[in-house]
Amino acid sequence: MSNIKVGIIGLGRLGKVHAGNLAFRVPNCELYAACSMVEAELEYAKKELGVTKTYANYDEMVKDPELDAIFIVSPSGLHCEQIQKAMENGKHVFSEKPIGLDVAEIEKTMAVIDAHPEQIFMLGFMRRYDADYQYAKEMVEKGELGELTVVRCYGIDPSDGMESFVKFAGASNSGGLFADMSIHDIDLVRWFTNQEVKKVWALGKNAAYKQLDEVGELETGAAMLQMADKTMGILVAGRNCHHGYHVETELIGTKGMLRIAQVPEKNLVTIMNEHGVVRPTSQNFPERFSQAFVNETAEFINCIKEKRQPGVNANDGLQSTKVAIACQKSYEEDELVSLSDIK
Amino acid sequence: MSNIKVGIIGLGRLGKVHAGNLAFRVPNCELYAACSMVEAELEYAKKELGVTKTYANYDEMVKDPELDAIFIVSPSGLHCEQIQKAMENGKHVFSEKPIGLDVAEIEKTMAVIDAHPEQIFMLGFMRRYDADYQYAKEMVEKGELGELTVVRCYGIDPSDGMESFVKFAGASNSGGLFADMSIHDIDLVRWFTNQEVKKVWALGKNAAYKQLDEVGELETGAAMLQMADKTMGILVAGRNCHHGYHVETELIGTKGMLRIAQVPEKNLVTIMNEHGVVRPTSQNFPERFSQAFVNETAEFINCIKEKRQPGVNANDGLQSTKVAIACQKSYEEDELVSLSDIK
Amino acid sequence: MSNIKVGIIGLGRLGKVHAGNLAFRVPNCELYAACSMVEAELEYAKKELGVTKTYANYDEMVKDPELDAIFIVSPSGLHCEQIQKAMENGKHVFSEKPIGLDVAEIEKTMAVIDAHPEQIFMLGFMRRYDADYQYAKEMVEKGELGELTVVRCYGIDPSDGMESFVKFAGASNSGGLFADMSIHDIDLVRWFTNQEVKKVWALGKNAAYKQLDEVGELETGAAMLQMADKTMGILVAGRNCHHGYHVETELIGTKGMLRIAQVPEKNLVTIMNEHGVVRPTSQNFPERFSQAFVNETAEFINCIKEKRQPGVNANDGLQSTKVAIACQKSYEEDELVSLSDIK
Amino acid sequence: MSNIKVGIIGLGRLGKVHAGNLAFRVPNCELYAACSMVEAELEYAKKELGVTKTYANYDEMVKDPELDAIFIVSPSGLHCEQIQKAMENGKHVFSEKPIGLDVAEIEKTMAVIDAHPEQIFMLGFMRRYDADYQYAKEMVEKGELGELTVVRCYGIDPSDGMESFVKFAGASNSGGLFADMSIHDIDLVRWFTNQEVKKVWALGKNAAYKQLDEVGELETGAAMLQMADKTMGILVAGRNCHHGYHVETELIGTKGMLRIAQVPEKNLVTIMNEHGVVRPTSQNFPERFSQAFVNETAEFINCIKEKRQPGVNANDGLQSTKVAIACQKSYEEDELVSLSDIK
Repeated sequence: MSNIKVGIIGLGRLGKVHAGNLAFRVPNCELYAACSMVEAELEYAKKELGVTKTYANYDEMVKDPELDAIFIVSPSGLHCEQIQKAMENGKHVFSEKPIGLDVAEIEKTMAVIDAHPEQIFMLGFMRRYDADYQYAKEMVEKGELGELTVVRCYGIDPSDGMESFVKFAGASNSGGLFADMSIHDIDLVRWFTNQEVKKVWALGKNAAYKQLDEVGELETGAAMLQMADKTMGILVAGRNCHHGYHVETELIGTKGMLRIAQVPEKNLVTIMNEHGVVRPTSQNFPERFSQAFVNETAEFINCIKEKRQPGVNANDGLQSTKVAIACQKSYEEDELVSLSDIK
Repeated sequence: MSNIKVGIIGLGRLGKVHAGNLAFRVPNCELYAACSMVEAELEYAKKELGVTKTYANYDEMVKDPELDAIFIVSPSGLHCEQIQKAMENGKHVFSEKPIGLDVAEIEKTMAVIDAHPEQIFMLGFMRRYDADYQYAKEMVEKGELGELTVVRCYGIDPSDGMESFVKFAGASNSGGLFADMSIHDIDLVRWFTNQEVKKVWALGKNAAYKQLDEVGELETGAAMLQMADKTMGILVAGRNCHHGYHVETELIGTKGMLRIAQVPEKNLVTIMNEHGVVRPTSQNFPERFSQAFVNETAEFINCIKEKRQPGVNANDGLQSTKVAIACQKSYEEDELVSLSDIK
Repeated sequence: MSNIKVGIIGLGRLGKVHAGNLAFRVPNCELYAACSMVEAELEYAKKELGVTKTYANYDEMVKDPELDAIFIVSPSGLHCEQIQKAMENGKHVFSEKPIGLDVAEIEKTMAVIDAHPEQIFMLGFMRRYDADYQYAKEMVEKGELGELTVVRCYGIDPSDGMESFVKFAGASNSGGLFADMSIHDIDLVRWFTNQEVKKVWALGKNAAYKQLDEVGELETGAAMLQMADKTMGILVAGRNCHHGYHVETELIGTKGMLRIAQVPEKNLVTIMNEHGVVRPTSQNFPERFSQAFVNETAEFINCIKEKRQPGVNANDGLQSTKVAIACQKSYEEDELVSLSDIK
Repeated sequence: MSNIKVGIIGLGRLGKVHAGNLAFRVPNCELYAACSMVEAELEYAKKELGVTKTYANYDEMVKDPELDAIFIVSPSGLHCEQIQKAMENGKHVFSEKPIGLDVAEIEKTMAVIDAHPEQIFMLGFMRRYDADYQYAKEMVEKGELGELTVVRCYGIDPSDGMESFVKFAGASNSGGLFADMSIHDIDLVRWFTNQEVKKVWALGKNAAYKQLDEVGELETGAAMLQMADKTMGILVAGRNCHHGYHVETELIGTKGMLRIAQVPEKNLVTIMNEHGVVRPTSQNFPERFSQAFVNETAEFINCIKEKRQPGVNANDGLQSTKVAIACQKSYEEDELVSLSDIK
């Protein structure tokens, strides 16, 4: 069987990570085309990634009969429409998270996806494909932690992006801290517990950058999630981590506790100097999840070749977005929000 | 100046810890008397601790003119009354936490305490006197973490007490998980942030011992606290920790994060064997806070000698109990509870 | 430029690791041929790795005009002869360590290599290509540790191979513990210090398997190395590690200390259960150095394409083997051995 | 039985630690007298420690009939003579390590000690009384590590004392790095293995302070010890540790490995900031071994009261000093040294 030919839309920071993986690190596929409105990005795709074709227009790329699959790494607000178009043109689709920002639009997109069951659809919750998370999931499935009672997830971005975020906070529409930062963690809570969220309470505080209050954005937030079976979810999200990129997940079960990246160790090195005993830290998501991005794309290609749907589907996108919306609403209204009220 | 003469009421597990410290490890004091309704405990006090007098009746001990101070380590429900009697008899008073279980009763007790400003009153929040907590507090005060945004506290008892707890859960009145287990953590959140709690939401789940549902007790619980200045508090409490006694505190600030006992290391030993790389763990509170108990008692004695009130006062007892009551109410009603509604 | 065509000799445990990397994980190369005397291994190469040609005879493969490079993963005693033949047939050569077991034979091989300066020769000291070791090397080069005074290296194999080792210890010729296990560590000491070894003292003890005394093999050994500039090297080698595969390196400098894999953490997971706080461990070299093997092979291919010699050359092989021989001699004679006495 | 009355000789840095413990932290004893040639130290003893008598002359103190025991914390060169005098005057004796600097003098002192078997003699190897070391020793005794094959000990002083050491290096007679710094570690190797040292090789390097070469002192040294049963001892000693006071001990056995203070954690606090994940470190021996000093003195007092000799005796002093002398000789001559050659 020949290589799967993939066309990518979006060549920003994360787009370049995916494009590089498709071009060089994932077997059985070929990065055949790239689409961007930025000329320099198309030049990059041709010269550095060796793509055969470039497109400035997504509607054209999506009709290219040579392409087997479309890889969507565009701004979040475009995902739904682009997924639909790709599906309707018979392509397999990988979309970065979130699947969308609006519940009704996501539900419409899901209907389109459901109407093409023979095409693969996969959503980019890459943490599920990180070796550490898979190790943890396997321990949970084998019952080594007993029944889960608490899942705690931290997702805190490095502070070196703070100045820029504050500057553009009013203009951009991040969807708020919980949609922007916690969406992976919400997916993890659902994945580890096999439960849906029932009710949430979310809080937030701007301390270093109080001006964020004015534009409705948050520096640091926390949310508590009540799952359908009473399991407790705890989220902390932030944009102001001075030691790097802090993604940590904890599982408390009736037989034991497990933590993934309790501290964000960069490598196996320990340094002892005038600061004390120091473990260097991961600095950003491409570093931390480098191999997870390769693994998820390999899984997408394998699903196409083996004609089976992946573990992460459109409903995972819908549910995680609904929870993020509920958290944002809870923060804004300072009230408990039931998921049944998110339409 | 001569040694401070102390009479202790209560010689259970924690009572024996305090009595031993007063008798052998705290300078400038003498464990002069002990009171208990259990004859064997009074025997123990005479033989092992060398007390001069024993009492079966608290009202008598509290009138002993030889005594400078009363040390209360009795069941929680008796604290208020015993504090009042000791105060009214001119004694300095150390009381174990909680100061009481009922807000009105605590307020009445505070009035009595306030009426005797020349007598020392101290409440047993010993964690404030643990060297690790003091190291952390000092860093906060020096501004090394910036402004605090999140304080997370875990207090989980070892599972070896679980069978016994389940057996007696119906009969005893623990006050619920949050009053019983989180009270120290609530005090820590207040101490580190210098803020009062405004609103809480508390959840709970019985998984290993579902029969606790029937008696209104909890195996594991979590609460989120909104502080007056928007700082976020996160509590996890439990009774079913298989690796020992897990007391962990995290401070997230705008300049850094700090964790006390991120994992409950028993000592400086690391073992590598067929289980992996293993750090042995603290097994119970007398082990973990052994020196903190000595330190707090030394502080109590020093306060008496130096005629100054300690850092932990009756209001700390009132506020922490109110928050614990709010958490319990929130869990029972599955609603947000404002502290202003706790009378 | 087209892909580099590689022929591999040896498809044992490590041979399969290299073959898989050449076939699937290293860009710009093709695993074109495989040579083995084991029919099943050639079948494996055809079916699983997709090689175009298989050989039962090395002399034939080495003459295949299609091949650009030969990858030698055969028993140590054959390396020298196979390197020479490949060089003399105009091939680039990658050889697993050690370059050879006999100093005179290695020197003869080096002469052949030197006679073909346009062909790439690389020796498989893959640890130099591990990200953690490269991070450490960079810190040393930047002077962040000051001047090195002590380098300590542990290399201890998992005990699950012990039974089999003891069984075949008499028959096989491992070259002794230091040649077999410490050769990588000897290379690391030379690499980090940029110094040659001057004198050694080596000790050993058989405790769990005292029968190894009879066949002159060792369960656990230690050596101290005096470098030309007085820097001290400390080696511990063993075959009986119950917690997995323990490869640890420490650098002590005048400004700080650095440890690579102070404990052999398998991943970022921490488990807390009845054993204590547990970090799972690496179990074997293919797991621990999985990516280092890919990196070194990518470097070999890049060197061919870019017509430059790699950082690890034949002299590194000669020197490390000489030190290993000196250690073995020192252990056997219980005397200090000067490297100048190893011919 | 009344309190043991103790007279202390030497009130320098370590002397003040011991004096404070005798005065305030060890039960059943009284710091009755102090002897020093420094007037200010005697003032300190009277005012801060509350001693009854002070002496400028050791020969007088040692004859004080009120004293039960003498505590020797004077310069190393005086220990032997002072021990003998105290013994001959019927006193129990605690002496700081080393017991002496000269083998013949130590042997003479041992004869005096042996002639007074009813008097307690104890040597200050306090690490044996540290809770972490006792935990490790217990595991060894229970066989949990199997048979020991390697014991590695690091003893590295903080670099903040380096300037002063270099300044006075020529004048003082430290006995050399191994006598000065490794003596505790030598004792630990003997204690953990229950074996005597047979042969040693010691190396050293001055890198940051090369001027130490001129006065025959060392900044950093390492030694390898061959024990009678072939167990291997590895020592690293130094005076230039930038992260604090690094005392670390490792036990490798046939069933597992154990490390005490793998990194010199100061407390249970972990900080995450711009430096990475940081564990603060112990800064000096009084901090690290604070409680061990109390414990060993309590053991000394208990031995007196219970009329039994302690675990650390004069022969431990003799053997450890002989090994330190052998290491120094080995370093100076760059040869293996057999302990049988140390007279």
